[in-house]
Amino acid sequence: MREITGVHRLRVRYNEADSMGVTYYANYLNWFTLGRTELLRDLGLPYAQLERAGLLLPVLEVHCRYLAPTAYDDPIRIETTLANLSRTRMGFRYRVYLETGPERLAAEGSTEHAFVDRHLRPIDVKKHFPEVWQRLSELVGS
Amino acid sequence: MREITGVHRLRVRYNEADSMGVTYYANYLNWFTLGRTELLRDLGLPYAQLERAGLLLPVLEVHCRYLAPTAYDDPIRIETTLANLSRTRMGFRYRVYLETGPERLAAEGSTEHAFVDRHLRPIDVKKHFPEVWQRLSELVGS
Amino acid sequence: MREITGVHRLRVRYNEADSMGVTYYANYLNWFTLGRTELLRDLGLPYAQLERAGLLLPVLEVHCRYLAPTAYDDPIRIETTLANLSRTRMGFRYRVYLETGPERLAAEGSTEHAFVDRHLRPIDVKKHFPEVWQRLSELVGS
Amino acid sequence: MREITGVHRLRVRYNEADSMGVTYYANYLNWFTLGRTELLRDLGLPYAQLERAGLLLPVLEVHCRYLAPTAYDDPIRIETTLANLSRTRMGFRYRVYLETGPERLAAEGSTEHAFVDRHLRPIDVKKHFPEVWQRLSELVGS
Repeated sequence: MREITGVHRLRVRYNEADSMGVTYYANYLNWFTLGRTELLRDLGLPYAQLERAGLLLPVLEVHCRYLAPTAYDDPIRIETTLANLSRTRMGFRYRVYLETGPERLAAEGSTEHAFVDRHLRPIDVKKHFPEVWQRLSELVGS
Repeated sequence: MREITGVHRLRVRYNEADSMGVTYYANYLNWFTLGRTELLRDLGLPYAQLERAGLLLPVLEVHCRYLAPTAYDDPIRIETTLANLSRTRMGFRYRVYLETGPERLAAEGSTEHAFVDRHLRPIDVKKHFPEVWQRLSELVGS
Repeated sequence: MREITGVHRLRVRYNEADSMGVTYYANYLNWFTLGRTELLRDLGLPYAQLERAGLLLPVLEVHCRYLAPTAYDDPIRIETTLANLSRTRMGFRYRVYLETGPERLAAEGSTEHAFVDRHLRPIDVKKHFPEVWQRLSELVGS
Repeated sequence: MREITGVHRLRVRYNEADSMGVTYYANYLNWFTLGRTELLRDLGLPYAQLERAGLLLPVLEVHCRYLAPTAYDDPIRIETTLANLSRTRMGFRYRVYLETGPERLAAEGSTEHAFVDRHLRPIDVKKHFPEVWQRLSELVGS
């Protein structure tokens, strides 16, 4: 399959830093969520619409490595890659860059998601949301 | 009406302090929510059950004054008072105490809530949830 | 004094909505903080720089009224106004607009801040940070 | 080495659930932090004291698998295990149990930490904080 990557920029919010003065580790997961939101929008599949239609993407697994600290007001670039896709699952990879001074890779991670319905029951996205499946398949060329 | 007060204790979480090293101001609102949760449980009206039954209490207004800083791991006591009640609204007051050393009042505030249904439409709690109304009326003696 | 207003736009993050499906009330305070950050940057006084120089602005008091719910992915506009200024204090007002459909005022609020040093001791900003004071005085015309 | 496990209980806070009605995935990392805080306190090494003394434990890596959803007000038990220790690093494992009905494992994960000083420079804990090292070594029997 083809990998597809989207880019989103933000600044570290005041409340995202902790008393060490650096971004608290759980907040990178919020940025991953932002990265997914913006990538799915770019792909013509806004997640807010998917959820209203009854297609949810809860997280099964997350991994993150922290490579360089970031701090309040730092400019950040998140690269989000749709890395794997099946009829029941979808996976993303993330690279978080610090854009001040010489660019640095601040963190990298991944999330794995299940396709589920409103009642959190696993579903076959090809069967229950054929248009979403077609769009995704076209994009990744599978 | 009678005022009813409940007490809840917690320690400041690591992620609740900001880069000044003190609790970030919005987190006191999370503590207010905890205080309400525990007071309603004490009163025999657990909010999780109310929500499942279709009675929601969104916030219409909040106010908070910050009197002394608190920091990571500080022991905190929240006193939550059911301060006003009508068929369409409910109000709470909060006092947040720092329990290290000589006790200090760290913050005080209030929230005002509407009774609404699942679709966020205002409701008359006496009409739509008579048992909840009866319990609340008995408690405050109105 | 002259009032000065800045504008900042964002989308509601996934993790900012609660299980009612609407933005949790404490998150509006994070948006107020964002509004202040962007207004101070516009005024040539980035808060990250002020903090590094030893000038902190802890919140003394916050007030917020919630007028219309907002939800995940909604486009939001925050208008932040520098509303009062003295040698020891600074106050802001906020208006949060929902920009989908016919624009609606979703919330309005205010915060009051003290000028303090790194040790959270109150300071006279005119005396200890004369350049900051001069810039602020010019802006508000006081 | 011996593994050491501590137990901490909490209820899911209202603001920890997202619009799916289940605990948002990043909040499990806050619970991991709570688990570490309470385990270190049990071991006679309160993290707040370590930080004041200049010994910080930033996260290098985190991993979490989500096995069963949890929701607002659910009673949760976190088991935190000190899983590895060297002079420059420390690792923890976590198991998060849902305690309503028949107990379920809701999530499991791990974090890896560096020993650093106030300036986030890596340090040899045996050399710079010999008492902390001695206490930890005794505990894990290394």
